[in-house]
Amino acid sequence: MFTGVFRTIAYVTGLFCLYLAIAMLLPMTVDLIDGNDDWKGFLVSSFLVGTAAAVMLLANRGQMRPFSARMGFLLVSILWIVTSLVASLPFLFGSVEISLADSVFEAVSGITTTGATVLTGLDDMPRGLLMWRSTMQWLGGLGIVAMSILLLPFLRIGGMQFFRMESSERSDKPVARMQTFATYLAVIYATLTLISMVCYAAGGMTWFDAFNHAMTTVATGGFSTYDASFAQFGDAVLITAIVFMLIGAMPFTAFFLFMLNHDYRRALDTQIFVLLLIVAVLSVPALIAGLGTGQYLPADALLHTLFNVVSVVTTTGYASSDYVAWGPLAMAVFLVASFVGGCAGSTSGGFKTYRLIILAQTLRVSIRELVYPNGVFPVYYNGRRVAPEALQSVTTFFFAFIAILFIFTVLLSATGMSLDDSFSGALTALSNVGPGVTELIGPAGNFASLPDAAKWMLSFLMLLGRLEIMTLLVILSPVFWRGD
Amino acid sequence: MFTGVFRTIAYVTGLFCLYLAIAMLLPMTVDLIDGNDDWKGFLVSSFLVGTAAAVMLLANRGQMRPFSARMGFLLVSILWIVTSLVASLPFLFGSVEISLADSVFEAVSGITTTGATVLTGLDDMPRGLLMWRSTMQWLGGLGIVAMSILLLPFLRIGGMQFFRMESSERSDKPVARMQTFATYLAVIYATLTLISMVCYAAGGMTWFDAFNHAMTTVATGGFSTYDASFAQFGDAVLITAIVFMLIGAMPFTAFFLFMLNHDYRRALDTQIFVLLLIVAVLSVPALIAGLGTGQYLPADALLHTLFNVVSVVTTTGYASSDYVAWGPLAMAVFLVASFVGGCAGSTSGGFKTYRLIILAQTLRVSIRELVYPNGVFPVYYNGRRVAPEALQSVTTFFFAFIAILFIFTVLLSATGMSLDDSFSGALTALSNVGPGVTELIGPAGNFASLPDAAKWMLSFLMLLGRLEIMTLLVILSPVFWRGD
Repeated sequence: MFTGVFRTIAYVTGLFCLYLAIAMLLPMTVDLIDGNDDWKGFLVSSFLVGTAAAVMLLANRGQMRPFSARMGFLLVSILWIVTSLVASLPFLFGSVEISLADSVFEAVSGITTTGATVLTGLDDMPRGLLMWRSTMQWLGGLGIVAMSILLLPFLRIGGMQFFRMESSERSDKPVARMQTFATYLAVIYATLTLISMVCYAAGGMTWFDAFNHAMTTVATGGFSTYDASFAQFGDAVLITAIVFMLIGAMPFTAFFLFMLNHDYRRALDTQIFVLLLIVAVLSVPALIAGLGTGQYLPADALLHTLFNVVSVVTTTGYASSDYVAWGPLAMAVFLVASFVGGCAGSTSGGFKTYRLIILAQTLRVSIRELVYPNGVFPVYYNGRRVAPEALQSVTTFFFAFIAILFIFTVLLSATGMSLDDSFSGALTALSNVGPGVTELIGPAGNFASLPDAAKWMLSFLMLLGRLEIMTLLVILSPVFWRGD
Repeated sequence: MFTGVFRTIAYVTGLFCLYLAIAMLLPMTVDLIDGNDDWKGFLVSSFLVGTAAAVMLLANRGQMRPFSARMGFLLVSILWIVTSLVASLPFLFGSVEISLADSVFEAVSGITTTGATVLTGLDDMPRGLLMWRSTMQWLGGLGIVAMSILLLPFLRIGGMQFFRMESSERSDKPVARMQTFATYLAVIYATLTLISMVCYAAGGMTWFDAFNHAMTTVATGGFSTYDASFAQFGDAVLITAIVFMLIGAMPFTAFFLFMLNHDYRRALDTQIFVLLLIVAVLSVPALIAGLGTGQYLPADALLHTLFNVVSVVTTTGYASSDYVAWGPLAMAVFLVASFVGGCAGSTSGGFKTYRLIILAQTLRVSIRELVYPNGVFPVYYNGRRVAPEALQSVTTFFFAFIAILFIFTVLLSATGMSLDDSFSGALTALSNVGPGVTELIGPAGNFASLPDAAKWMLSFLMLLGRLEIMTLLVILSPVFWRGD
């Protein structure tokens, strides 16, 4: 059907669509057992997607093109866009009335593991649909870990070149090595999900809730099966969630290196400690704000502060209480927390901790260089010197992030949204967090009431954030399509 | 009194304080003529400052230390802080009841040419006090132009090294050359002020208003003699203001080079065109928002849009209408406009156009480098290649700017200010714009009702912005004070 690079991309995309078509059969089965009509929607979606995928696979079989940067950018972008669109079908064809803009928003939010939702009345929704939301996030989370460990370092996106695993470069069978890595990743990811599910169930969740929340926790996704999110659950569940959200935000390479070589030293990445430090630092003012409301006992305030700070910093997006109601200080803290993001090679979105470390060091070095004009002060990360190109990738990424944030604040305002909602919405979408820090789109609200134009823009921002901005900017730039 | 570097710094600071003490005699005279009691406040301030300055000058006479980067950072920081404190005395000792925090805020806002005010009832205020506000901004504006042309390029602050005038480096009498430059600057600055004063008077202002507004226009300061700011005046005055605000935001080096060598080519700096382009681009959505209110005829809407966009982009801070009431789109546009700032070597604050040009190019180059991994694509500015160090200065400045903005958003929120007011206040102070984009601190409000703690923080931010952030960060960093 296609030729050249596009043939390979079409084949791989077909493969991923086939996986999604198969994944739709699980919620279908649940809806069949529950005796509600939604199973038809899943069946139609699964059939359509499965057929299309089969055609794609058959029509584009044959010799795969060798991997190139060009193919990488296209493949990753197309994969995330197509799977999001495909994942929206069960919402469109389901028994619950959901518009096109809403279906796509919800699917993008799922596949990108953002967790922003346009749906209300989750508590009474068909179980199949709830499972589909969790499944999207789980698959999206696995996808992002695989992409950020196996692909992005080679595309040199936003300083990700820093996380190339030397072993994979040195190998004389790169594809075979990659498949081994991918298998390891999937096993680690599934194991973590399983453990968190058991912990959730032990903490008092039903098995259905435990299954769904385990999937959306390890994926740092944030979809819940209740409108009230984690306000629904007790302390044991909150503590479990804190632990597994943090694990989801850790670099999976660390688990990996540890499993493969028992290499403690390399596994203990600086970004892990800095992530925990940031959580601790942000929790102090948030705790003060929480206690200031007078509605919590100290221990409760601490638990809810930690839960919500971890949820936002790891870009999960669950909420155990309406921290927007804690006042301006809390709103400001959670706004800043929405930037941070987790570690590179995790399921988290956001700016990412290692980039903050590198930027903070650049500032420190700049001050030194101003004081000692003849000195040369390199930037280090994890004890290794950061190459100037990698440094520039990080600073450029920062500029792109902030510029896009403010450009979309203006565009969203043009749809009639308030300035607060526009800014907070743009940030939470670009960072793949989920809730914003305003009453309307905050932990106590959702994105349902926004105009369709805003929903499309936010969907685009979620994809942009998930694809580390530069991937999508590259394929949107004329220079990518010019000559070859 | 002092020794070494500090002796020279004390001497220069004394000199500047003496100038301020002399400058206080003008508003004193006006108050004497008007027959109101405020002349006493000016006399006391002038006497105190003059005496202190004389002591400083006499005690620290003698051989000046040769200029060093270390001295430069200290001198500039101390000069701006001390003159701001000194300039606050007439407010403290005047007949109008003004608290310490308010006096310092108003003086810092004056000397840094920000234009944010805590005073209301300007229309009925003693004329001496109004003149003092304008005088501070005029002197502050001259100071910043001199500093950014003669000093900052040698301190290599935030990419300013790019604006070194080669002629001054090559000269064998650098101090004599510098004095010549400074004299030229003062003459250009005074001439522009005079022309704008005449234009204002011709446009219908009284000579008193024309005198004051001319001083605060060319300085891109923004203090007015009316609470209503430029809503007070007719079209001819608004057009005059647009022209002279833009002139104030132009690189004075351009006027300079043109006067000295009639060098058109070098005078036509890219940042000039980009500044005008940014004004044009931001005016489109602002105009749509303005027309959308239905309260303007098209021509009026265009005039007010241009006036207010130019006012904010040039970091002047006058307002001809309450654009915050134009709705979220206008608020978002004016928020973004608050970042921009004018050209390097002008009286404007903000991020500065040339930095935006360089950052945008860095992004373009990064995308190219991702597409062509083996290509090398340098960044150009004004046809010259930007050295990697200068590039890093710019990206670091950007990070410092954004990081400080959000850190102070959190700190201001902790004083009880709303998140909107905190963010907008921090931005407008750091950019030296003046008004924010909220009802409270926007063009129709002022900073009077904020808690004292917030006023101190905002005063610090205005100084930080005026000193191009890095100057103050350098002297606040331990590394500056360690060893030598």
